[in-house]
Amino acid sequence: MVGNDSSVWSQDETIRILIASDIHLGYLEEHPVRGEDSFIAFEETLSLAVQYDVDLILLGGDLFHHAKPSLNCIYKCMEIVRKYCLGDKPVSIELLSDQTINFSRNVNYEDPNLNVSYPILSIHGNHDDPVGREGISSLDLLSTGGLVNYFGKWTDYTHVRISPVLLQKGDSKLALYGLSHLKDQRLSHLFQEKKVEMLRDEQHDWFNILVLHQNRAEDRGAGNFIKEAELPTFLDLIVWGHEHDCELYDMKGNREADHFNVIQPGSTVATSLAAGEARPKHCALLQIHKNDYILTALPLKTVRPFIFKTVVLSEHNLGDEDVNESEKVQEYLKQKVNEAIVEAQNLLSGDPRQPTMPLIRLSVFYEREDQIFNRARFGQNFTGQVANSNDILLLKRERKIREKRQGHEEEVDVADYVADSTNVETLLRAYYDALPPERRLAALPVQLMTEAVRDFTIKQHEEILRFALDAYRRRCITTLIESNTDTDIEAIADRLRVLRDEIDAADVTQLAALKAAAPAQIVIEGSSDEEPTRSEAETAVRGRGRGARGIYILPPPPFWEVG
Amino acid sequence: MVGNDSSVWSQDETIRILIASDIHLGYLEEHPVRGEDSFIAFEETLSLAVQYDVDLILLGGDLFHHAKPSLNCIYKCMEIVRKYCLGDKPVSIELLSDQTINFSRNVNYEDPNLNVSYPILSIHGNHDDPVGREGISSLDLLSTGGLVNYFGKWTDYTHVRISPVLLQKGDSKLALYGLSHLKDQRLSHLFQEKKVEMLRDEQHDWFNILVLHQNRAEDRGAGNFIKEAELPTFLDLIVWGHEHDCELYDMKGNREADHFNVIQPGSTVATSLAAGEARPKHCALLQIHKNDYILTALPLKTVRPFIFKTVVLSEHNLGDEDVNESEKVQEYLKQKVNEAIVEAQNLLSGDPRQPTMPLIRLSVFYEREDQIFNRARFGQNFTGQVANSNDILLLKRERKIREKRQGHEEEVDVADYVADSTNVETLLRAYYDALPPERRLAALPVQLMTEAVRDFTIKQHEEILRFALDAYRRRCITTLIESNTDTDIEAIADRLRVLRDEIDAADVTQLAALKAAAPAQIVIEGSSDEEPTRSEAETAVRGRGRGARGIYILPPPPFWEVG
Repeated sequence: MVGNDSSVWSQDETIRILIASDIHLGYLEEHPVRGEDSFIAFEETLSLAVQYDVDLILLGGDLFHHAKPSLNCIYKCMEIVRKYCLGDKPVSIELLSDQTINFSRNVNYEDPNLNVSYPILSIHGNHDDPVGREGISSLDLLSTGGLVNYFGKWTDYTHVRISPVLLQKGDSKLALYGLSHLKDQRLSHLFQEKKVEMLRDEQHDWFNILVLHQNRAEDRGAGNFIKEAELPTFLDLIVWGHEHDCELYDMKGNREADHFNVIQPGSTVATSLAAGEARPKHCALLQIHKNDYILTALPLKTVRPFIFKTVVLSEHNLGDEDVNESEKVQEYLKQKVNEAIVEAQNLLSGDPRQPTMPLIRLSVFYEREDQIFNRARFGQNFTGQVANSNDILLLKRERKIREKRQGHEEEVDVADYVADSTNVETLLRAYYDALPPERRLAALPVQLMTEAVRDFTIKQHEEILRFALDAYRRRCITTLIESNTDTDIEAIADRLRVLRDEIDAADVTQLAALKAAAPAQIVIEGSSDEEPTRSEAETAVRGRGRGARGIYILPPPPFWEVG
Repeated sequence: MVGNDSSVWSQDETIRILIASDIHLGYLEEHPVRGEDSFIAFEETLSLAVQYDVDLILLGGDLFHHAKPSLNCIYKCMEIVRKYCLGDKPVSIELLSDQTINFSRNVNYEDPNLNVSYPILSIHGNHDDPVGREGISSLDLLSTGGLVNYFGKWTDYTHVRISPVLLQKGDSKLALYGLSHLKDQRLSHLFQEKKVEMLRDEQHDWFNILVLHQNRAEDRGAGNFIKEAELPTFLDLIVWGHEHDCELYDMKGNREADHFNVIQPGSTVATSLAAGEARPKHCALLQIHKNDYILTALPLKTVRPFIFKTVVLSEHNLGDEDVNESEKVQEYLKQKVNEAIVEAQNLLSGDPRQPTMPLIRLSVFYEREDQIFNRARFGQNFTGQVANSNDILLLKRERKIREKRQGHEEEVDVADYVADSTNVETLLRAYYDALPPERRLAALPVQLMTEAVRDFTIKQHEEILRFALDAYRRRCITTLIESNTDTDIEAIADRLRVLRDEIDAADVTQLAALKAAAPAQIVIEGSSDEEPTRSEAETAVRGRGRGARGIYILPPPPFWEVG
């Protein structure tokens, strides 16, 4: 074995890949200060691909922040890709597998009508997954535009079977398995049931990489993340998208190693002001030579400086006790922000493309209500100095945190969950779970609501709440009619509670079916009398249920009708 | 002079252009029957370009129906263009002018990274004009994707100066002037003030074509269309987009003719069920050889058959007087629809791509209320037979039409205007104008409302109504404060009437400024005290004005606040 010293590797036999993920083009696109950040980092990423003269660029999903990006966002993305990825330099990596199996259309660098020098291969993430009846994603657009090779799209939710993209350069052979984002619960379930297959060519020695876009952190709750232990051990490397914390270190490895290594590139732009996003951001250069590989972390030099600090007020002497408490706290925090601004100077790379005005986030634990104040007004002190002057501070009550730990929580503060959560479902679920029992959702299943809110916010599916609630309402009515429980209000309430728990524990596929059925029913409604009509069924239930023991059975009609 | 017999023209010196307009991709995209129509016609158009082996394809605007097309719509468009317009065939027409002047980016067929065989040149129309802060249109996307060459974008509303695209093939020289859509009133005004310039190269003999996308029909109202007489006479041909009626005939001509000819391709898909859209649809082949040209109308074979009929019930004997009048009318109209369905068979071209289920529109004049009935239920008789079964009938009251002609109109029926109008501004203006004086808008300027509604419906600028009303409210308040008219309700009403008329008669540029100012003011509002605050100023005016003599001064706060 020559070993992995790239200086002695023949360039003609070394596959060079630039790896990046979670570029989130269009994040805060309309923000006067931060609007360009996502595009600047993307441009740097592609410029690194050119600088290191790679054979291909591999993206781990969430190239776009919105499932329906603005025209301007797609436009800028296309401009950047055209600038860096088209050109005369020949692509020297050969595609051996049948491209119609893996890709949404033929790969751009084999298209005789296009001159591609740096092919991008990308899976989709949870932000840029397909939308609409036709299931078209923004990556499909870039694909038909000849700018991105989109792979790993999977639509059968009962079984996943991944056929690898097979690539060769000299004697180095790469099998690239791509799996675009699936709901974590669904995929985790499929893994448990051994319904995720990765096809292998046992005849040859392949260097095997899997790229996926899923929850990796265990704190997302049971069944809501993918366990590394469930991934097949024949894999040599995993490129893990979706997690925004960059966990990327220089590494060397060998195909015969006992276990795969995980590359977690993290995002190229901070889409939340969480501690993990304040880590230095990178993309990676992966070089594969026959059995060996070397991974080099490439620091991004154009990412806006971001300083994250935790301040526990009780741990500090705020000085003079004569002064108004709130003002003392403000003065202290202003000083902390100013220190952070100075500290942020150390994060300037000297690259002229880097935005210099920093992001500052202080996560402040306070003790008493008299310590708090108007955060927006506080932020005005830093307009022009801090890019996120409107939300520098995250205030959490220290006592409440302690009480929560001891199980004596009186009140739930949404902000606590916002700070800790990385996606809207986790946030909502954590929030609902934290509510005292008497304030939890009585009739609506948490699962339904979290998914609907996710689709509403991230996928911009504007009618999903109406669809989901409407579908659930029908389900309630059907259940009640079928079970003949309409004589006793207690029985109705019990029956609906059972239904709620059934739905909440439902297999994700069932839930998807419930949601998917909704639009069709709406269309049918106008011309069919088979469904119980709204007025009859609803009046029957509402007449008895409303106001009874605080059970929320059905909202009044206008709520359902709002489009 | 050889004269215009194309059979003796040298192909190396003949410029061949395929001309089409108003393709409206994405029109009724979600319609289960008609959803593909716009794409099918576009595909046929490009296939004709290939069949006739043209040098370029010239589009007259409104390639897209929506200013923000769906991902699926852009995707399909890109697929179709890639299929027909990329390839190895060299483009044999030479671009002589500086492309940075005319085009949004370099022309695709000179890009060394793309193989373009049939370059598309397009201006934008009123449907696909630039949107958002950055002014990006769907054509910019196609342009950066290397699929369309977008020209004629003009942003200075005080002066238009068009520099031609200069093209040459052998000794045939073409100067192509492109002017993307401007508001008709604005452009008409600029023409009147002689502020529309077309730059000319007097040194050489050019064949001069202008392509524009404006109202041509005089029935759009004074100042709301472009007069042919105002277009410069040095032009040889005008390609007139926007008007959907195809007015396209075979013609021959010569550069030394006294006057230009007008080519009005019409739309390739019916976007309204008006009589004009039922005319046979075409695109055109233009061949230019030195001084001469030949235009050939090419019938489109994939356009859905459309039969339009006018039925005046009083002119027909509906038979048996014992039967219920409404049923007699329905039976008669069913018979008419069935006749139309048979007639539509004659419009089938035999092309397998053509959708066969016809569009049928009966414009029915009835005399008495007892003759009418539920149109949707009537349409159910033709589900599966007529593509627009939901809106086959347009019912207009004959008596009312007559009264209107005699000036005795009692009531304004919006449907009358919908039927006759081709755009929302014309519709609204006609509607407002037709109202009796006491019911006309008292405080709001018609101009402001029509433009705002246009932007809301066509440009999908969802906040424009709020912006426009908010801007106007501020203007009212400022005017009242400045003029010290707050002591007398009559004076306030008068002052506001004057303001309304001022705005209505305002130069279009002023109006644009009023609208454009609105978003900025909204942003400023939170952090500035310079503007009169909502609560003070609004209460002052509303307290006196509300209810007084039916004058609508200001709506209550919730209306303004709705996002």
